[in-house]
Amino acid sequence: MKSKPDNDSTLQVRVYYEDTDAAGIVYHANYLKYAERARSEWLRRLGFDHGQILTEFGLIFAVKHLAIDFKKPARLDDTLEITAKLTAIGAATLVMEQIISRKGAVLAVLEVKIVAIDQKGRPAVLPPQLRQIFKASC
Amino acid sequence: MKSKPDNDSTLQVRVYYEDTDAAGIVYHANYLKYAERARSEWLRRLGFDHGQILTEFGLIFAVKHLAIDFKKPARLDDTLEITAKLTAIGAATLVMEQIISRKGAVLAVLEVKIVAIDQKGRPAVLPPQLRQIFKASC
Amino acid sequence: MKSKPDNDSTLQVRVYYEDTDAAGIVYHANYLKYAERARSEWLRRLGFDHGQILTEFGLIFAVKHLAIDFKKPARLDDTLEITAKLTAIGAATLVMEQIISRKGAVLAVLEVKIVAIDQKGRPAVLPPQLRQIFKASC
Amino acid sequence: MKSKPDNDSTLQVRVYYEDTDAAGIVYHANYLKYAERARSEWLRRLGFDHGQILTEFGLIFAVKHLAIDFKKPARLDDTLEITAKLTAIGAATLVMEQIISRKGAVLAVLEVKIVAIDQKGRPAVLPPQLRQIFKASC
Repeated sequence: MKSKPDNDSTLQVRVYYEDTDAAGIVYHANYLKYAERARSEWLRRLGFDHGQILTEFGLIFAVKHLAIDFKKPARLDDTLEITAKLTAIGAATLVMEQIISRKGAVLAVLEVKIVAIDQKGRPAVLPPQLRQIFKASC
Repeated sequence: MKSKPDNDSTLQVRVYYEDTDAAGIVYHANYLKYAERARSEWLRRLGFDHGQILTEFGLIFAVKHLAIDFKKPARLDDTLEITAKLTAIGAATLVMEQIISRKGAVLAVLEVKIVAIDQKGRPAVLPPQLRQIFKASC
Repeated sequence: MKSKPDNDSTLQVRVYYEDTDAAGIVYHANYLKYAERARSEWLRRLGFDHGQILTEFGLIFAVKHLAIDFKKPARLDDTLEITAKLTAIGAATLVMEQIISRKGAVLAVLEVKIVAIDQKGRPAVLPPQLRQIFKASC
Repeated sequence: MKSKPDNDSTLQVRVYYEDTDAAGIVYHANYLKYAERARSEWLRRLGFDHGQILTEFGLIFAVKHLAIDFKKPARLDDTLEITAKLTAIGAATLVMEQIISRKGAVLAVLEVKIVAIDQKGRPAVLPPQLRQIFKASC
């Protein structure tokens, strides 16, 4: 992980049996798990984990809308690369584009709209500190 | 289940611990599992299971594109209803619209584009018998 | 489902793609999910769901020890039956024996030791009301 | 990963939302996934992946029996260490002991009995080449 360029928030993921299905490929819903892992590591790179976001800001990031295009299947034993790139910030929302690839071949592309919610589940305006850090990462 | 109208392919699903996450709600990717269960039961209602589709026609149904809008969270112990409605048929593709609801409240809406593939992963034209049965279900 | 005897807490479960792996069978860890579903339905049959157990008694049931013997594989499209039988009750613990079968053939056998914990994660003595209901179910 | 001592087959795993449940901790069945990931990496360290084992030897490793003792819960954002140590080899079987820990604190201990099966699901004697490599790793 240390050898990656600084502005790279790519996560490497290995495909294990748990990820595959009887069609011999990665089960489609599991690409969303890979994408969420990459978003969690992106957040960590910016200096936060989910626990801190909740403790310091009283916020949880919830997926509001997600679109995924499946181009090629991933298979058992594959090593995948998952990107997480912030492309838009609203008052309470983030839009991220994510690519899942294997040795440079794109397997899936996701657009994920995330909303910050408070502990009652209501949309919550992003605190300036977070907004600034997110903006700097774009 | 007995009170449902004949042309209703709604599946009832209970939310268990396995489905939830530390935010106290159903983990977003698991809605895709619920949707896939409902599509499998829809197929079964039409007289087929996945094993037969593979044995008789040499086909697997793979998700090609999926969009999901999350409206309200589902929680532990909830009973959900998942619909599966075929809205378009192409040469090798199906488009399905699915709604996940709880006591009439819509929690999530999905549009799923499915492609029939052969065992080498290539798109495969739907056999007339399947196409006819699918069309009759629209 | 209607033909089951009254004191039977068997749950029927269908095997979907999400449950299987690239070996073409149900992924071994997913048998634990089936077992947990059956325990949740057993609890419901006794008049409780997990939310109530937490709200009324401040308790969560956590798995403390689990042993599972895998005898035969389950496959896509299978309908399985999962039993949940309480075999011992301690001050804060329950022992359950569970069988996963398909058309009478035993696929897996589990012994699960459960401990009641409070919200700080400490073992908590079962309240008399719960203990009595559990005992009556043995 | 490169900085680990040679005879160390420990896998580091991060806890993501997908792994947790509404009790705020890692869902019990997911410890089995972590353990299976560590066994897959152990196999890889010995020079094999599952695809090769199937292609070269016609074998799949299936879990035959598993016992797990849960000592402390893992939580969101934790970094866990998972060991995989071969402790016994039979004609067609392996026994592995695995420990899941966080910063030196043991969270769970597993004993996993694995059987080599052929593609028809029948137990298959381990080929001498594999047996020798496995033995050398004990």
